[in-house]
Amino acid sequence: METKVALLGFGTVGKGTYRALTENADEIERKTGKKVTVKKILEIDPKVRACGLAPEEIFCTDIEEILSDPEISIVAEIIGGMTIALDFILRALRAGKHVVTPNKAVVAANYDLLQKTARENGVQIKYEASVGGAIPVIETIRKSLVANKITKVQGIVNGTTNYILTKMEEDGMSYADALKQAQENGFAEKDPTADVEGIDSANKLSILMIECFGIYIKPTDLDRTGISGLTRDDLRLAAQHGCKMKLLASAERKEDGTVEAFVRPTEVPLSNPLAGVRNEFNAIYLYCNMADRILLTGRGAGKDPTGSAMAADIVSLA
Amino acid sequence: METKVALLGFGTVGKGTYRALTENADEIERKTGKKVTVKKILEIDPKVRACGLAPEEIFCTDIEEILSDPEISIVAEIIGGMTIALDFILRALRAGKHVVTPNKAVVAANYDLLQKTARENGVQIKYEASVGGAIPVIETIRKSLVANKITKVQGIVNGTTNYILTKMEEDGMSYADALKQAQENGFAEKDPTADVEGIDSANKLSILMIECFGIYIKPTDLDRTGISGLTRDDLRLAAQHGCKMKLLASAERKEDGTVEAFVRPTEVPLSNPLAGVRNEFNAIYLYCNMADRILLTGRGAGKDPTGSAMAADIVSLA
Repeated sequence: METKVALLGFGTVGKGTYRALTENADEIERKTGKKVTVKKILEIDPKVRACGLAPEEIFCTDIEEILSDPEISIVAEIIGGMTIALDFILRALRAGKHVVTPNKAVVAANYDLLQKTARENGVQIKYEASVGGAIPVIETIRKSLVANKITKVQGIVNGTTNYILTKMEEDGMSYADALKQAQENGFAEKDPTADVEGIDSANKLSILMIECFGIYIKPTDLDRTGISGLTRDDLRLAAQHGCKMKLLASAERKEDGTVEAFVRPTEVPLSNPLAGVRNEFNAIYLYCNMADRILLTGRGAGKDPTGSAMAADIVSLA
Repeated sequence: METKVALLGFGTVGKGTYRALTENADEIERKTGKKVTVKKILEIDPKVRACGLAPEEIFCTDIEEILSDPEISIVAEIIGGMTIALDFILRALRAGKHVVTPNKAVVAANYDLLQKTARENGVQIKYEASVGGAIPVIETIRKSLVANKITKVQGIVNGTTNYILTKMEEDGMSYADALKQAQENGFAEKDPTADVEGIDSANKLSILMIECFGIYIKPTDLDRTGISGLTRDDLRLAAQHGCKMKLLASAERKEDGTVEAFVRPTEVPLSNPLAGVRNEFNAIYLYCNMADRILLTGRGAGKDPTGSAMAADIVSLA
């Protein structure tokens, strides 16, 4: 059986998703017996359409062409940003298409609306790629830990800040210099606010809390401190305490049912594997009442790792 | 919808599986909308039947009572050993029941027969708990990494030997003393051969190779060295090299399609997170062409962790 998919946007993650679905099509078919084909790609930039990574004839410039195509059952939103992405996701759901997205900001800010719209239209929205990039954290919580009460989730969920902290700690760089190097190496955006102020981590923590505890707290309501105020002295002090400074996202469900959650630079003892997570890598601990501690580590961002997670959601919907 | 399950055996893992399905029934229902009930437990030992952990009336002593019950759709084999376990699994499959098992020895030695029997009877056999205990490695390979070519799998998949090596290294114990302590603390069997000679690791590696590469090699055909020949001097030498000695199970698919696989004590550099995996914990690296490196860490054995993985397979079949 063949499933036809449309991609909205052909930027970095769009290209990774396309590559995962096409170059590994034989693996997908071997493991699932399913054929998944990208039928259309929405992309308004003619230069991108001509990049040669996908046949020019599958590109289109009008989302209606995708929404009105009854053969397309799954739409991958990879535009990024907030307003247009949300609008396109809602329109796709209302057109009866399943939606897959890596857009943590949109999912975390509009969780109830997205779920309600999906339910009303008999479709699903999936967002494995929104937290931890290639790390299969949402599938693990939903499926592999289905028979567990998860009591705590804690991790490093932002690669940009972890890269900056690693450079400050290992190379003795100042925050400003480390940020500049992260920007030069493509690990930080020109405007790094969402990463360095912990906003991106808060979006991901909000999603993790939904999955782990079934509790939705808007990311703007979470206790949040970024890394922009950190100095080399803070990192040296952490080292003197036998720790590394890490930007942790953490949520714990207490015995009385309340939840304590924060995004905050935290001194992590060297004995904790999170202290050893370097550069742009992410890692997430899940504390469970049956499985005990599970630690998942991998690349939290990037074209192919994010494409891998997008493709997994697409195949699971197929 | 309610799914009825039978457990074959009520030893350690049987109790863990029962606990995961009953005590966390609310979590299972919240996450999946499914109700899973243990209808019968096969257990011949009257002392175990009277242990009070499950109602006495659900125990039975004749497997026919389970196989002939049309309400029971899933059978969990938790007897252990080889002959009877294999016989019971085959009879359950032939009776049209899905089977879930943590029995790596039976699965690895009889893979083709088990799959053929399942296929012919229109049912499935699942074995997440057979590798890495609570670690969701098989689901991750099959689902989350579905759009990846996996090039290499490498890890610490036997908790007993990792416990012994940790004690030898951290407490300067001899192999014999560390083995004795592992036996006293319940981390090693009276006859430790299968663990310390790498047989258990080879069983798990055989299963991992099937899942990662689609290639089945009998565990007895794998290159295998255990830890019983290791001395404190070997560990000291590893430390001098900036390494820890770990019993690794490893399989790599080369460019030319051949596979290099072994179970062997290996010096692991401290910069590799596998070096930091201590005591009875397990960890498995998956090297992929899209997701890059994914590392999964957790408890590789024990009542509740193994029960967690058994329950996940049961719920996914429900």
